[in-house]
Amino acid sequence: MNMTFLQELFNSITQRDALLRRRQGEIVAPDHAQLIKACHALLESDGEASSIALASRALAMYRQLGEEERRRFFECLETEFAAEPTDIDRAYATYREARNNANLQTLFDACEPRRQELFRRLNLASNGTYELVRMREDLLGLLREPRSDGKELNAIDADFAHLFGSWFNRGFLMLKRIDWNTPASILEKIIRYEAVHEIRDWDDLRRRLDARDRRCFAFFHPAIGDEPLIFVEVALCKGLPDRIQPILSGESAGERDIDDPEAADAAAFFGISNCQTGLRGISFGNFLIKQVVQELKQELPQLKHFVTLSPVPGFSQWLASCRTDESLPAELRRTLEGLDSPDWHRDPEQSDRLKAIIKPLAARYLVEEKNSRGLPLNPVARFHLGNGAELKRINWLGDVSAKGLKQAEGLMVNYLYVLDDIERNHENYIANATVACSSEVRDLNRRARKMAKGENIK
Amino acid sequence: MNMTFLQELFNSITQRDALLRRRQGEIVAPDHAQLIKACHALLESDGEASSIALASRALAMYRQLGEEERRRFFECLETEFAAEPTDIDRAYATYREARNNANLQTLFDACEPRRQELFRRLNLASNGTYELVRMREDLLGLLREPRSDGKELNAIDADFAHLFGSWFNRGFLMLKRIDWNTPASILEKIIRYEAVHEIRDWDDLRRRLDARDRRCFAFFHPAIGDEPLIFVEVALCKGLPDRIQPILSGESAGERDIDDPEAADAAAFFGISNCQTGLRGISFGNFLIKQVVQELKQELPQLKHFVTLSPVPGFSQWLASCRTDESLPAELRRTLEGLDSPDWHRDPEQSDRLKAIIKPLAARYLVEEKNSRGLPLNPVARFHLGNGAELKRINWLGDVSAKGLKQAEGLMVNYLYVLDDIERNHENYIANATVACSSEVRDLNRRARKMAKGENIK
Amino acid sequence: MNMTFLQELFNSITQRDALLRRRQGEIVAPDHAQLIKACHALLESDGEASSIALASRALAMYRQLGEEERRRFFECLETEFAAEPTDIDRAYATYREARNNANLQTLFDACEPRRQELFRRLNLASNGTYELVRMREDLLGLLREPRSDGKELNAIDADFAHLFGSWFNRGFLMLKRIDWNTPASILEKIIRYEAVHEIRDWDDLRRRLDARDRRCFAFFHPAIGDEPLIFVEVALCKGLPDRIQPILSGESAGERDIDDPEAADAAAFFGISNCQTGLRGISFGNFLIKQVVQELKQELPQLKHFVTLSPVPGFSQWLASCRTDESLPAELRRTLEGLDSPDWHRDPEQSDRLKAIIKPLAARYLVEEKNSRGLPLNPVARFHLGNGAELKRINWLGDVSAKGLKQAEGLMVNYLYVLDDIERNHENYIANATVACSSEVRDLNRRARKMAKGENIK
Amino acid sequence: MNMTFLQELFNSITQRDALLRRRQGEIVAPDHAQLIKACHALLESDGEASSIALASRALAMYRQLGEEERRRFFECLETEFAAEPTDIDRAYATYREARNNANLQTLFDACEPRRQELFRRLNLASNGTYELVRMREDLLGLLREPRSDGKELNAIDADFAHLFGSWFNRGFLMLKRIDWNTPASILEKIIRYEAVHEIRDWDDLRRRLDARDRRCFAFFHPAIGDEPLIFVEVALCKGLPDRIQPILSGESAGERDIDDPEAADAAAFFGISNCQTGLRGISFGNFLIKQVVQELKQELPQLKHFVTLSPVPGFSQWLASCRTDESLPAELRRTLEGLDSPDWHRDPEQSDRLKAIIKPLAARYLVEEKNSRGLPLNPVARFHLGNGAELKRINWLGDVSAKGLKQAEGLMVNYLYVLDDIERNHENYIANATVACSSEVRDLNRRARKMAKGENIK
Repeated sequence: MNMTFLQELFNSITQRDALLRRRQGEIVAPDHAQLIKACHALLESDGEASSIALASRALAMYRQLGEEERRRFFECLETEFAAEPTDIDRAYATYREARNNANLQTLFDACEPRRQELFRRLNLASNGTYELVRMREDLLGLLREPRSDGKELNAIDADFAHLFGSWFNRGFLMLKRIDWNTPASILEKIIRYEAVHEIRDWDDLRRRLDARDRRCFAFFHPAIGDEPLIFVEVALCKGLPDRIQPILSGESAGERDIDDPEAADAAAFFGISNCQTGLRGISFGNFLIKQVVQELKQELPQLKHFVTLSPVPGFSQWLASCRTDESLPAELRRTLEGLDSPDWHRDPEQSDRLKAIIKPLAARYLVEEKNSRGLPLNPVARFHLGNGAELKRINWLGDVSAKGLKQAEGLMVNYLYVLDDIERNHENYIANATVACSSEVRDLNRRARKMAKGENIK
Repeated sequence: MNMTFLQELFNSITQRDALLRRRQGEIVAPDHAQLIKACHALLESDGEASSIALASRALAMYRQLGEEERRRFFECLETEFAAEPTDIDRAYATYREARNNANLQTLFDACEPRRQELFRRLNLASNGTYELVRMREDLLGLLREPRSDGKELNAIDADFAHLFGSWFNRGFLMLKRIDWNTPASILEKIIRYEAVHEIRDWDDLRRRLDARDRRCFAFFHPAIGDEPLIFVEVALCKGLPDRIQPILSGESAGERDIDDPEAADAAAFFGISNCQTGLRGISFGNFLIKQVVQELKQELPQLKHFVTLSPVPGFSQWLASCRTDESLPAELRRTLEGLDSPDWHRDPEQSDRLKAIIKPLAARYLVEEKNSRGLPLNPVARFHLGNGAELKRINWLGDVSAKGLKQAEGLMVNYLYVLDDIERNHENYIANATVACSSEVRDLNRRARKMAKGENIK
Repeated sequence: MNMTFLQELFNSITQRDALLRRRQGEIVAPDHAQLIKACHALLESDGEASSIALASRALAMYRQLGEEERRRFFECLETEFAAEPTDIDRAYATYREARNNANLQTLFDACEPRRQELFRRLNLASNGTYELVRMREDLLGLLREPRSDGKELNAIDADFAHLFGSWFNRGFLMLKRIDWNTPASILEKIIRYEAVHEIRDWDDLRRRLDARDRRCFAFFHPAIGDEPLIFVEVALCKGLPDRIQPILSGESAGERDIDDPEAADAAAFFGISNCQTGLRGISFGNFLIKQVVQELKQELPQLKHFVTLSPVPGFSQWLASCRTDESLPAELRRTLEGLDSPDWHRDPEQSDRLKAIIKPLAARYLVEEKNSRGLPLNPVARFHLGNGAELKRINWLGDVSAKGLKQAEGLMVNYLYVLDDIERNHENYIANATVACSSEVRDLNRRARKMAKGENIK
Repeated sequence: MNMTFLQELFNSITQRDALLRRRQGEIVAPDHAQLIKACHALLESDGEASSIALASRALAMYRQLGEEERRRFFECLETEFAAEPTDIDRAYATYREARNNANLQTLFDACEPRRQELFRRLNLASNGTYELVRMREDLLGLLREPRSDGKELNAIDADFAHLFGSWFNRGFLMLKRIDWNTPASILEKIIRYEAVHEIRDWDDLRRRLDARDRRCFAFFHPAIGDEPLIFVEVALCKGLPDRIQPILSGESAGERDIDDPEAADAAAFFGISNCQTGLRGISFGNFLIKQVVQELKQELPQLKHFVTLSPVPGFSQWLASCRTDESLPAELRRTLEGLDSPDWHRDPEQSDRLKAIIKPLAARYLVEEKNSRGLPLNPVARFHLGNGAELKRINWLGDVSAKGLKQAEGLMVNYLYVLDDIERNHENYIANATVACSSEVRDLNRRARKMAKGENIK
């Protein structure tokens, strides 16, 4: 292939790079057509020597594309780098005649979208893996937009997902403890990526991490260096914690305060945050929790309970729908109007009245309400139940922050990981969508059923 | 699926493991049928929770299989875990009707041998990657055997190669310097894996590594820990080295001895060893050399030449064929008989006579002789020329060890890596199988041509 | 000795510790008399087994003493743990009779204050070294107070200084680079200890550290872990920098902005901060600068100039005295009144007038004004000139912060470290208090002399 | 001071250095007079800038001195760098007049041999600490020689000991685990320094270190890098081990073999080796054992017994003296003649006869026999009893190697470290030289007493 073309292409890019750094804005960035040209060149490159250089160049070009050009680039990816129908037909015909491994291999290769090989080759560049993760992040952004007018960009996403599933294999992930001795370059990412309970600043971070009864662990991948993939925050406590505010403010968690970690009997997972949007659907959370449980048991053999203190996003919305559901008893719906008075949770009487009906309804929401695939409607429940955990307890006024009140009327939930039950719970969940739950939650759910029939409402 | 069966299976295995450790030999190991059953279970497993456990169990069973049982296991893999023809037919029919991405994806999935998903799931086990590399090593051993009577085990190898190509992506490899401060656990593997010039013991290793003018670098993969994948040994010197013995004995390399690394102008790569048979064909050597060149330039900016001192395996064999080639001048063939006298290389006159005709013949062998694919016959030449290096010099009596005399009548060769030429050389080699070589080698080759016609033989 | 007493003592302390943590303020802390008792016990202890425990206990007690009790403790140290006059007299008499090594050793031992052995034994406790450094910090605080009514606490300080000089030997110090990858636990100490130009918060720190043209290095001591002893901040630049504000705001330093470190030709030391008050007088600054120069030359061989951008504390005060010095020409003193107008430095005309006379006066201040020991009056000048640096340049409006204007009317100074001259400059400084300076500074000083005589004032 | 002289001196040394490396033997090394001159220059040097250079030069000269020149150097050190009698007299007179701290300080300084300041300054050189340790090693060698004709080199040794006691303070030592992942550069030193049971080669080392039931720990000092100061080898076992051979051969230690460390209940210290002769008398062994006990308890909380398997050097010699001691019963002495028959320990009957009397005699030797200072005659016993351990058990045929038979007729001993008793045992040992021992050992000793009176001998 023509190295001169490439060399010129490259020179023009890199010079432009330099210029861009100096006089931003004056220069016209490369367009998607140039990048597509570079991608073809990369796929046609017949050896490793030039492939690395070409991959680096292509990724550098991509970074300079504006949003609209990126969309066009993806659209070209979809059409120009798909599998070739005539190749498939020919390969199938041959396979049909002689069904041997060689012919099958040819057919398989013909069916593989050429994008997959393109992505594998882009991955040769230094930092290529991370750049591809960010490229998929861009793609997911486009997929969310309404105007994705029929263009089948989903196929590209499937290619990413296929490759990332292989590259972000559990065996390649490295668990690291995060604490106050962790490099600042990583800690600032923890601040940025915390998705459950916002970390405001370094002092806030320190309150969460730098106490004897706190732990934080993250997964890293060797090819993307200092970027955490997912992390979990843990508070050591005595008994199961029922409120998030004391934990976030750096006070002791759990029923009683503990002097030192050796006195704790429970580890509470109070925040699990995915860091890389571009790795959506490549799940590590399950492995993370289990590996962290092992680490903690190693360090503190006396720990007995591994439990979450989890939010219930979507519950308020569901509850609102109850209030307009005329099949429900009027009294019940009237009581729920108490939620409309401002600061209801600070009024003990009001709060008690609401608690008596909302806790049962929450049990019903979590245990009975299913989505179109027959799985629990609540996404956090899906995650933990799918991991084999058990729905242990519903905590009234567990999160009285604005966000907590807004999304779940202040409710929080404990999911319990009982090591001996995990496999069985998981199997039952997968096979029958069975929600493993404690007798306490079962009782609440039973009560909700009676309430719905007009019984039992005080 | 039935966890009880699996649990029992697992228990029986692990107990047996323990027993085996104690009273070796008395116990009957699991057979391939049990393992195949476990593999089916793993593929059918519907979640991560049990998959890890199942994968670990399956790999533990595999380790206990004897050689014959392993062969049978692979044979079952070939037949039972291939793609399903009826699925392919059905998917193709659908795709034919509506050629959209979803239907293509279904066809692609149908064509993928189920082994690939099996291997991906086995990789969930701790240390799974390394176990799979060793499993392929076993497979390659079986493939080499003559009695591979038609069984298409090659298809399994293709699956391994496909996955390993993705997992052992350049971006995931970590370059580490190996020296006398390296952990003994790694150094003992360097001793074991050195394939070019045997390292006899720890003292020998120390001679090679622990001098100011020596360097050694290896690639590691995060998922297989302390096992090096490939390593290269380097001697810093003044001028291009022409003999291996001074280097191996820890004397200074190169034309003149050097007091310190800063005085060197050349880095000589005198041994590149692949460590993992199971990664055959997954080439890192190319990347290794280029990354090491960068490391060395960083540390010692004054280095000018990056060169190998390489063996010429197969040359003696080719030369032997010349001696029976009646198209060659009789005088030439008679001179070659000098090789029959014992210790010919210690007899200066004899050696000079042979040198005059063997060096040209070697040039011819390396430059002109091609294999069935039109590439150089000599495998070491293929590797370095394919990387973009240039055949720089042929060294008479470069390796007078028994091995060196046996495989190449003592010849060694320098391949030169000229950074500015690498890409062009590589392109020409790929496109036209052009052998980049110095004028000195070209002259030798020209002389060989004349010799073949009976000219120029002194 | 009586372990029971000690055990009881210890128990009462540790229980109290625990109590104190719980109900702060209610408990009476131990008093100096108890601590002095524990110190005697430690000195009398006859073996290592109990010494470590005793040392830990004594240091724990010390930490609980209030300020007044600490003063009393030091007063007791001075009187009860000094050398014993009668021992000295006896030892001297014996030595006088027979002047041999054994008798000299006895005399030497008799003269050593018993505090030194006490401190050596306290150092057996974990973290003992750091606790002793902080103990000296307390002592220095007391020494500064006016009411140190004749008590010779200075003798205790001499004992500390003697031991610390040995313990904080250059060979034991470890140089570490500080950057954005440094653990947060260390970075927060950098924020706290920065003494020259305050670091406001983490963002400010990041601006100073986390750019390709910044470096920071600190000395650590193995026995006091994560606590830095001293650190220096460096900006890489082209040419000598003359203003501090662009450096602190994270803009490029030096005459022109630099794209990358490789383009820099100068390294500017713009902040050197001692971290441990308790190590006053144990100088590492000299070693630090020289070791950092070596590190930088190693990393960036093209660097040519190693220079400081230093404050001139005390200059404003000296200049104020000029204004009342009637021996100086009236015109000159009148011009200086310009400093009284607010924001004079923002008025170009005013500023130019002042510059014309203040720069020469600054040269005079730095070169000619000496303290009682005949050394430069300015402490920063003493430090760098004593290290062998040269006074290179006086920078008008180099620091226009409130602090910079207040202490030096905005002046900053460059001291230049020319490697080949360091030893000679140092020798001349030590022998003759010679101030090495550039011809530019010499000219300014000459001009100041003329100005003082009423010549040359525009 | 005259830098030109020094510069010349240095140049001549370093050039010579280079020459020496090239043409060894032709050049005359520097003599002690030159070195003494350099030492004076170092002491007179008035600043840090030149001191480091001077210290490096002086140490480089010392390294080149031959043995005889080193002796002369030490002799000059003794006379020329002692304290100055006239200074002492003057300082004492002043102190006598006014007994204040300042005058005491002056007297103290006058009494300090100038060597101490010299050594402190030599310590400024890179690697100075290690060079000084080796210098003392040379000195100790000279002190052992008979012809130390009256020269008081002991005073120099006292200076070294004084400084090293401060520099090798417990707080500065770093404990590191040594295993098969330790750098080879350190492991080769473990092989070299093992003093109790020789390590023959790397395979032997691996047998000792690289098993799940083995541990090894060493102390390092930050200023002397990779050189271990002392190390201890540990075998994890069930019950107290009684024979060294199974441990050394890599078999399991203890009564029963153990599958994994978690099954062990005892940690057996079977080799403690001091590595640096030059640090004789600066004891770390005590701290090492205690810190290792803590490490092990941390890792393996189930460990109950911390015990040594120790040699009994000197016992054979003492036993030989018994055989000529006519106060002992003739029958007893006759039985001991059994030791003269070759391979007596392989003859069960013979062995049993000897065991019956030798074990009691060993108890007596260890418990009753004292040296001139009233402490146990056996040095290993002194070490462990001084640390607070208890003499637990005497093991017949515990070490049947040639060395073991020669020094102790094959006996080995267990000293037990009972954490709660350590302090009390230590106190009793220091105060009353009490030997803490088990009832078993006490019984044996009692029996020995009866045997001596002619009772109880079978």
